[in-house]
Amino acid sequence: MNKLANIRIVLCQTSHPGNIGSAARAMKTMGLSRLYLVRPKEFPHPNSYAMASGATDVLESIVVCDTLEQALTGCGFVIGLSARKRELSHVPVTPRDAAEEVLEIAAEQEVALVFGNETNGLSNEELIRCQRLAHIPANPEYSSLNLAAAVQVMAYELRMKNEETPQPKAGREKYATHDETEGFYQHLEQTLVDIGYLDVAQPKRLMSRLRRLFARTRLHEEEINILRGILKSVQKNNSRTNR
Amino acid sequence: MNKLANIRIVLCQTSHPGNIGSAARAMKTMGLSRLYLVRPKEFPHPNSYAMASGATDVLESIVVCDTLEQALTGCGFVIGLSARKRELSHVPVTPRDAAEEVLEIAAEQEVALVFGNETNGLSNEELIRCQRLAHIPANPEYSSLNLAAAVQVMAYELRMKNEETPQPKAGREKYATHDETEGFYQHLEQTLVDIGYLDVAQPKRLMSRLRRLFARTRLHEEEINILRGILKSVQKNNSRTNR
Repeated sequence: MNKLANIRIVLCQTSHPGNIGSAARAMKTMGLSRLYLVRPKEFPHPNSYAMASGATDVLESIVVCDTLEQALTGCGFVIGLSARKRELSHVPVTPRDAAEEVLEIAAEQEVALVFGNETNGLSNEELIRCQRLAHIPANPEYSSLNLAAAVQVMAYELRMKNEETPQPKAGREKYATHDETEGFYQHLEQTLVDIGYLDVAQPKRLMSRLRRLFARTRLHEEEINILRGILKSVQKNNSRTNR
Repeated sequence: MNKLANIRIVLCQTSHPGNIGSAARAMKTMGLSRLYLVRPKEFPHPNSYAMASGATDVLESIVVCDTLEQALTGCGFVIGLSARKRELSHVPVTPRDAAEEVLEIAAEQEVALVFGNETNGLSNEELIRCQRLAHIPANPEYSSLNLAAAVQVMAYELRMKNEETPQPKAGREKYATHDETEGFYQHLEQTLVDIGYLDVAQPKRLMSRLRRLFARTRLHEEEINILRGILKSVQKNNSRTNR
């Protein structure tokens, strides 16, 4: 099976349509074909086609979405690309380590690589939906990779890794999809509010801390079921209290 | 010493001045700064500056040469980049292996990476001056990497290799100690019993599943505090229920 076909590239709020075309070209040279756009500033646009060179087929099968949420539907793993080092966030992995993890999961499930806007990168809102953060090592004095160049580096690492001898891992448990994991986070948040641990007026960073914790662990489907079972049980007890 | 300062990128007979700018940007993001041009079609040109973004310093120190020979003067090692597989030539190495060799030599001598014209690649005349040939793996049905994208991939591999010398990670959060983690597991188990989710008579594999989940994530000290705070809150609510 072709693992690369299970990988989607998601570009968020891209400003320059030319970059969409260059990204499509970069993807196709490495054998990727599934491009998703979240609220692009301008698309379709002739510059996209000009920069795509022979990769118009990639442009023509683009999926344009209103929200990142939509673009991630069905994905078992979501990895965000960030140029900045963030104080409070996941510890970023290298593109190489990211590629290894992505291909392992892409053997069975869909995976998304998420790229932010050219000027601002990924917003915290977008970042919070990623289970892993990858950082392309760069010159600290000038780390502004062009968007398509960043796509090229990641796509290259995926191809390099994909060309290595395949090692099927048997009997791996299925990872929860993005929507299942989001469902769990919402259930968790509601439960914390119910028991009075989370103050909606002053939520601080509690949920993002908890998201980070569970993102590192990459929850399995079965584990989500257990955790939600626990939450249900806590909520049931709690509603008895407040009856 | 900075090995990257001993590496020059040589672009032969580049057709599009925009690509020269993009290549300069790609170089600078990875810490390379020495760009040589052999008979560029048009340079200087405003498109080069437009595409270079903040890498104008690289453009301004460009060396323009009449012959490849000139551009290679003083180099202890010359490696050519080729998209095509050639019947009669060196067996190409991967960008990764090339980077390793380049840096080894760049520790003491100057090294050149040579890129051909956008349409035709390296001519045999140019190729014959290279001691090694590198090939970026690509989709056999569409292998036409943009020139700057090829420079980006090579520069990225050079930076990755150059950074491999171990760097201590500063400011990492402290992982919880074994006893702190065990304390959390006991607290979790007791809470699950309290709320009636875990039946001590028939515990099954619940705790071992949960242990596995948290073991994968390697909990931080601070996270243990948050999780135990939640457990305390659940227990408090629960004792009110059963009062």
